[in-house]
Amino acid sequence: MAETRAERFLQHAAAVGFDVNDEIRVGGNYQAVVRDGQLLYVSGQVPRIGSEVVVKGAVGGEVDLAVAQRAARIAVLRCLALLRRELGSLDRVARMLTMTVYVRSAAGFTRQSEVADAASELLLQVMGDAGHHARTSVGVAELPKGAAVEIALQARAES
Amino acid sequence: MAETRAERFLQHAAAVGFDVNDEIRVGGNYQAVVRDGQLLYVSGQVPRIGSEVVVKGAVGGEVDLAVAQRAARIAVLRCLALLRRELGSLDRVARMLTMTVYVRSAAGFTRQSEVADAASELLLQVMGDAGHHARTSVGVAELPKGAAVEIALQARAES
Amino acid sequence: MAETRAERFLQHAAAVGFDVNDEIRVGGNYQAVVRDGQLLYVSGQVPRIGSEVVVKGAVGGEVDLAVAQRAARIAVLRCLALLRRELGSLDRVARMLTMTVYVRSAAGFTRQSEVADAASELLLQVMGDAGHHARTSVGVAELPKGAAVEIALQARAES
Repeated sequence: MAETRAERFLQHAAAVGFDVNDEIRVGGNYQAVVRDGQLLYVSGQVPRIGSEVVVKGAVGGEVDLAVAQRAARIAVLRCLALLRRELGSLDRVARMLTMTVYVRSAAGFTRQSEVADAASELLLQVMGDAGHHARTSVGVAELPKGAAVEIALQARAES
Repeated sequence: MAETRAERFLQHAAAVGFDVNDEIRVGGNYQAVVRDGQLLYVSGQVPRIGSEVVVKGAVGGEVDLAVAQRAARIAVLRCLALLRRELGSLDRVARMLTMTVYVRSAAGFTRQSEVADAASELLLQVMGDAGHHARTSVGVAELPKGAAVEIALQARAES
Repeated sequence: MAETRAERFLQHAAAVGFDVNDEIRVGGNYQAVVRDGQLLYVSGQVPRIGSEVVVKGAVGGEVDLAVAQRAARIAVLRCLALLRRELGSLDRVARMLTMTVYVRSAAGFTRQSEVADAASELLLQVMGDAGHHARTSVGVAELPKGAAVEIALQARAES
């Protein structure tokens, strides 16, 4: 395991094919990250690489669990990329607070927690103890651009 | 464009037929707004005018995009009306923080972001720079009272 | 009505068959409660007693309103049990802030607010005035482990 958050972030990004130097654009009149004092609110992220949503469809239907977990990793990597951009370095994140994981679910799919686990594990691996978070995962009918997963989170910055 | 938040709020309300002097009742044992220090938590609002939910149905099905955008505008105007009532004036809102937009979605509808954009734009137009916010939009199966859209938000008051 | 929060919590737990001494395990790499300063973030709770999710299915379909309301009570009791464990006593909760109620909904079910009311009322009955909260309730397609209801909340601890 690499020694720094920056290195571990790059390793995980490489593993799923996410280019950390991609400009992360927002598709509407809102901000990707709002910082208010030490609190950071990250807008819901879908598994987009460049301009393309790379995992679309209903999990438990055309998208299987392993692919959905990759989607969750890409979505949470985007959250981390946004925090890095906002703060200059992931070392300035004091701790994660909450993560909400929306899984587009085929009828009868009930393993949303296992999809979310992939994102939770990545957070812990990159951030260490600062990656611990409260979590809510639910199964939704549809997501923007057909995405299979969407992840929003809150974190606190170092003072 | 009108000069004050109060005027711009009234203009947008008039444009969608929302009466800003309606009493906003809550349909259960909870509070429409919780204020804790400077933080304001606004309960999920549906597109209700008076006692009637005026836009019902699934977006992408019986509700088209333009009608859904009107529903989003009404829902976010209710959030603003609640903040105004809580603080006495929209001028006492220091800034918006987050907005979550739930869009009741017909099968295959993936333009939740475009529905949410209508609410985001209204926030920016009424509140100016203080209207910037982080945002999450998802597609849900059903919403209370058959509403097409539900919007919850957080804001910070002036100290 | 019993005089203390602890007693009222036990009474409500007994009424729905929830054993307050059950160890509450988390089914993944996240924390049931995150405390950051005075803020407490409780992860989404399903109606689990021991290791079993006791109310599964779609509300408005195989699960009727009264059963869904029992599910909501169990889920919010778990949230309270987690706060009690984190703080040592419910007396150290200064106030509730927000509750989000996800109701797994059969097609056409629009009474999510009535499901959520059962949880809201329990919060008020156990916590008194400190139980007031902002609330968002939505209808989702699926929930982890087939649960009928999932509830997440935020609270503030005494300083």
